[in-house]
Amino acid sequence: MPLLQFTPLQSRPSASFWSSLTSLKLDTLKLDDTERDIQGFLDEGMLVKDRGTGTSKKKEDEQGGQEEGVWVAGSLGVDERSLGSGSGSASNDVAMKGTFRNFNTIEDFRKVDHKKQLFDETVDRLLASFETEPTTFNPFLLVTYADLKKYVYNYWFAFPALVEKPGWEVDDRGMRPWTGDAAELRRLEREAQIEGEAFLHKVVNGNSVVGPVKEWKTFFQDVLEEDRTLVFHDPTSIPSLPGWPLRNILYYLAHYQSVQRLRVICLRGGSGGSTVLDKVYLSSPPASSSTSARPSAVGWEKNVKGALASRTVDLGSTMDPTRLADQAVDLNLKLMKWRVMPDLALDEIAATKCLLLGAGTLGCYVARTLMGWGVRTITFVDSAKVSFSNPVRQPLFEFEDCLGGGKSKAQCAADSLKRIFPGVNTRGVDLMIPMPGHPVAPASEASVRRSVETLDNLMDEHDVVYLLMDSRESRWLPTVLGNVKGKIVINAALGFDSYLVMRHGPSPGTSKPEQKRLGCYYCNDIVAPMDSLTDRTLDQMCTVTRPGVAPIASATAVELMVSLIQHSQGIHAPADLAAGSATTAESSEADGSPLGLVPHQLRGFLAQFRTMLIEGPAYDRCTGCSATVVDAYKQDGFAMLLRAFNEDKFLEQLTGLDKLYEEGEAALEQVDWDDSDAESGASI
Amino acid sequence: MPLLQFTPLQSRPSASFWSSLTSLKLDTLKLDDTERDIQGFLDEGMLVKDRGTGTSKKKEDEQGGQEEGVWVAGSLGVDERSLGSGSGSASNDVAMKGTFRNFNTIEDFRKVDHKKQLFDETVDRLLASFETEPTTFNPFLLVTYADLKKYVYNYWFAFPALVEKPGWEVDDRGMRPWTGDAAELRRLEREAQIEGEAFLHKVVNGNSVVGPVKEWKTFFQDVLEEDRTLVFHDPTSIPSLPGWPLRNILYYLAHYQSVQRLRVICLRGGSGGSTVLDKVYLSSPPASSSTSARPSAVGWEKNVKGALASRTVDLGSTMDPTRLADQAVDLNLKLMKWRVMPDLALDEIAATKCLLLGAGTLGCYVARTLMGWGVRTITFVDSAKVSFSNPVRQPLFEFEDCLGGGKSKAQCAADSLKRIFPGVNTRGVDLMIPMPGHPVAPASEASVRRSVETLDNLMDEHDVVYLLMDSRESRWLPTVLGNVKGKIVINAALGFDSYLVMRHGPSPGTSKPEQKRLGCYYCNDIVAPMDSLTDRTLDQMCTVTRPGVAPIASATAVELMVSLIQHSQGIHAPADLAAGSATTAESSEADGSPLGLVPHQLRGFLAQFRTMLIEGPAYDRCTGCSATVVDAYKQDGFAMLLRAFNEDKFLEQLTGLDKLYEEGEAALEQVDWDDSDAESGASI
Repeated sequence: MPLLQFTPLQSRPSASFWSSLTSLKLDTLKLDDTERDIQGFLDEGMLVKDRGTGTSKKKEDEQGGQEEGVWVAGSLGVDERSLGSGSGSASNDVAMKGTFRNFNTIEDFRKVDHKKQLFDETVDRLLASFETEPTTFNPFLLVTYADLKKYVYNYWFAFPALVEKPGWEVDDRGMRPWTGDAAELRRLEREAQIEGEAFLHKVVNGNSVVGPVKEWKTFFQDVLEEDRTLVFHDPTSIPSLPGWPLRNILYYLAHYQSVQRLRVICLRGGSGGSTVLDKVYLSSPPASSSTSARPSAVGWEKNVKGALASRTVDLGSTMDPTRLADQAVDLNLKLMKWRVMPDLALDEIAATKCLLLGAGTLGCYVARTLMGWGVRTITFVDSAKVSFSNPVRQPLFEFEDCLGGGKSKAQCAADSLKRIFPGVNTRGVDLMIPMPGHPVAPASEASVRRSVETLDNLMDEHDVVYLLMDSRESRWLPTVLGNVKGKIVINAALGFDSYLVMRHGPSPGTSKPEQKRLGCYYCNDIVAPMDSLTDRTLDQMCTVTRPGVAPIASATAVELMVSLIQHSQGIHAPADLAAGSATTAESSEADGSPLGLVPHQLRGFLAQFRTMLIEGPAYDRCTGCSATVVDAYKQDGFAMLLRAFNEDKFLEQLTGLDKLYEEGEAALEQVDWDDSDAESGASI
Repeated sequence: MPLLQFTPLQSRPSASFWSSLTSLKLDTLKLDDTERDIQGFLDEGMLVKDRGTGTSKKKEDEQGGQEEGVWVAGSLGVDERSLGSGSGSASNDVAMKGTFRNFNTIEDFRKVDHKKQLFDETVDRLLASFETEPTTFNPFLLVTYADLKKYVYNYWFAFPALVEKPGWEVDDRGMRPWTGDAAELRRLEREAQIEGEAFLHKVVNGNSVVGPVKEWKTFFQDVLEEDRTLVFHDPTSIPSLPGWPLRNILYYLAHYQSVQRLRVICLRGGSGGSTVLDKVYLSSPPASSSTSARPSAVGWEKNVKGALASRTVDLGSTMDPTRLADQAVDLNLKLMKWRVMPDLALDEIAATKCLLLGAGTLGCYVARTLMGWGVRTITFVDSAKVSFSNPVRQPLFEFEDCLGGGKSKAQCAADSLKRIFPGVNTRGVDLMIPMPGHPVAPASEASVRRSVETLDNLMDEHDVVYLLMDSRESRWLPTVLGNVKGKIVINAALGFDSYLVMRHGPSPGTSKPEQKRLGCYYCNDIVAPMDSLTDRTLDQMCTVTRPGVAPIASATAVELMVSLIQHSQGIHAPADLAAGSATTAESSEADGSPLGLVPHQLRGFLAQFRTMLIEGPAYDRCTGCSATVVDAYKQDGFAMLLRAFNEDKFLEQLTGLDKLYEEGEAALEQVDWDDSDAESGASI
């Protein structure tokens, strides 16, 4: 009698599986490379009717009265459901349980020992389950190494099959075509809620009855040996050879249920929903029915060249590059989270909408660092055009952008961001921000009003406002609006070899009573911002700074923002001072930002490579953030702004700075000068 | 008798003038806006023969027997000679002296008072010179405002002319064509070394004699009034009206030499070298010969529309954009020099050839900061390709560079630099740097040898080598070669929220005896660099750092290099520590770098926004910079490197680190452990 042979099972990982593996690795597994459960879906081999010619009858009856057509092999697929908790298999798919392990390095993946161990453990568990109550007869294995920088996946499936020696024999004497109803079997299977690749079948009083494989003895108690039938979802593509999963079932039946003969129905799918009957096989007596000797097992899948080696799929070359970039950017950030900072709320950072006022040296570097943090919404405001001196210092512009008078900086910066990372949501707004000390001619009032409205709307649409302009007075309006709207305002300004980076304090009246409110850019001033732009010499028009200052200040500004956003108190975070100083203890580790200190102001000095952390309280006569100014704007709106733009002393009178100044002058006059230390030789 | 009228003078600033003004402003004037001497060149009006048709005789005799042709006006030109000390006027040009003032701001330029004051002062000086000895009769004025960011020049010429009231009358009764020899006059003028726009002429005994205008009285002592002749280089384009410069000469003669009548020869150029005779004019008696009443003066040039307003020339739109960019980049740097740091040797920085090993996050940011400093030679070395996660963190790459498997990083970075600034001299070298712990298979020996040679040659061709790789061991070979060649080596390495930036010390044996030699990257190690690349997990392959760290570290690295280059002792500069610490005094201000401290190592901690300045001495068993290692390489060359690549313990044995380790282990064993503080509960 011929020995029974089996058709090897094929794996079929879908693109969606790799996609879900990527997500799992990034969001859940991270550096975890331990084993996990996986679910596969076995589909039956299928006869596809040859509709191509309609004339060919050659294949008919070759396999015993079968329909004309082409056999398509079933396979064990893994897809987007495999690694999740979700289930719900489609049509005739059979859910199969397996073990999955994703290695962290290609070296680990390649190590034979790792794979052998996994395989052996799986076989051991299978045999152990046979002793008690098998839940699956064909646990499969999938080991992977995902190179997520390139979207190349190395993988290797194993379908461990216990080896029966000398094997099963096929006794087809008296074999007869199966005339049962496959659809009915499937229905019964569903009704009995039998899971797995096989079930038992008998006919009692003319009625079909099905039952789970493990209940063989009781199920077939009163059934003749020749009528004891195993029904098995067969993924075979070669009708004469049953599929691989049958091996372990037969092994189990022989060794653990003492079965010596049985009939097997290989259930297969077919085009048009018809089912297919295949031959019936009978088992030979097992060589040894002892369960103590551990059988050998085989089953690593061969690669496409037929070698026992892993397979590789390169999705990088076929994936939508924009999506690739998207995921790659995420990856870098998620690695930070995995490795050092599990508390990092990356989504919160990515969702922060940033308005950059100024698209010059600071604006360009700030935008780049924001993109590094995964920030997806970046809007530029500027009114200048790209000039020839810009590209070497402003890292979003190129020589070409300077030609023909220069592109508009804001739009050009936004275009550049898009070229760097198409997933970013960015735009440029060509806008001149109205300023105190720059009077508005009556004819320009309407256009200045529109500019204010544009800025107002932009600030509403964003979460954080960066002040990155090149003049003092242009920061005033957004400072006031920032206070009115309670936005986070980050301010950066450059000196020749120094810089200031600060966050403005919260709006007046919103701080907790016990907290001192932090100041804004203008809190240290005793005069209102005024025109500093007219009469500027060439060196005042260009930002004359050591080239290293801007990238340092810009990166510091963004890091300050990210630290602040991650702080439990957000905009109300108290000002951290340098580590070791007295007030740092105020914000404990748990209460603060996972990223470290969240200072109020940073002053950097490149000549000493030194950074100072400074805290400056809000000043109640400040022309930028005092309640007086904020309230005046809330009450009078544009009319108040117009006075600030047009009237030299308006802000000083409004805040009372003018009186302070007068008092100061008066006080000076009353001082009884001590001339003894005076350097001037004149004496009274 | 008709009143004498004058043709206004035209200015003719050449493009080369604006170019020389640009240089003067950048290199010499800087923010100096005081008055300076300027030289103009007056050329004569000229009859251009009408060769167009050859048939037209219409114009003949219209102006009294003149040749057929078209009159072309002469003008007062300024060119590349005008602002310099050089002279040498071409052909018939007459050098004219003037006053030049370049304002720093457009507002200053526009101020009427400024211009009026200049004009009045010029007239006053002219009148004062008339009292004593006039050196010029027509001092001109040029005020400018140069917008060097856009290459737009605002300018206004004035040719001050004293107003004679009621004016001169022309008495052409008895007027006769001048039949003299213009060429002879010019020859005599040259021989007599008479400068200026006019001279005197008489005939003595049939011989022509010339003399300076100021010597009128003695020169014409014995000459009949009707033969007293003034010869004047006339820029007129209208033959019947003499040119503007004649006004002041006549005023001088009338008021300071009491001349009432004279004959004037208007000397003009002509096509074919012929000279032109014009009418003779005689003066009317001056209204008042008193010199005490200050005459009024006119002479601001009208603009092209005929209005009394300044003119503008926009060279930005016509200049070669590459040159524009070149100058614009220079400008920003020169402004630094003018404003704050006259000692800065910008040329030295620009000429520094930089080799960047690594074109990743650090390499890209370093290159950008170098370009900001005007460094013109930047070479990248890298062996990787641009991947999708790169562009948001590596500011020389874009999304497009990642497609199709990614461009080669080194070349792509170089191409990007060229797009930013076409004047940069840059290239990318695709090279894998051989590393200790990464054994070389015999079959690869030849190619590794070539890689070493390539790196060796590259290091020879550059002044500064930046180590910007992402592994420890890849820095070893360039560290050794840097010591062998005595190059400045700048090293930058990133942690998650920290960085190291350092300069390697000078080669062993080259330091002054009293100075301690500074260490290299490996001086703190007690093990040799080894393979850290194999078995890396995803997070170890990507640079997992807060996005702000790289721009800060890169900018710091470049600023450290620039400070070092500007230090009087260069590579031998002692290590500055933080301001206020003990050893800072070592390098006094005068002896040090104009840019400030030149530390040895900087360690930055973003979580505290803190930077530490560290000094680390060279270690005599260092695997990177010790004399042992450098000498071994000098002696055995590639063979020594090969052993370092291939043999795990070679470098440790070579330097004696292995013995140190053994001694340390032995020492540990002999320690009499005190268990009282041990946390482990086990006791003996």
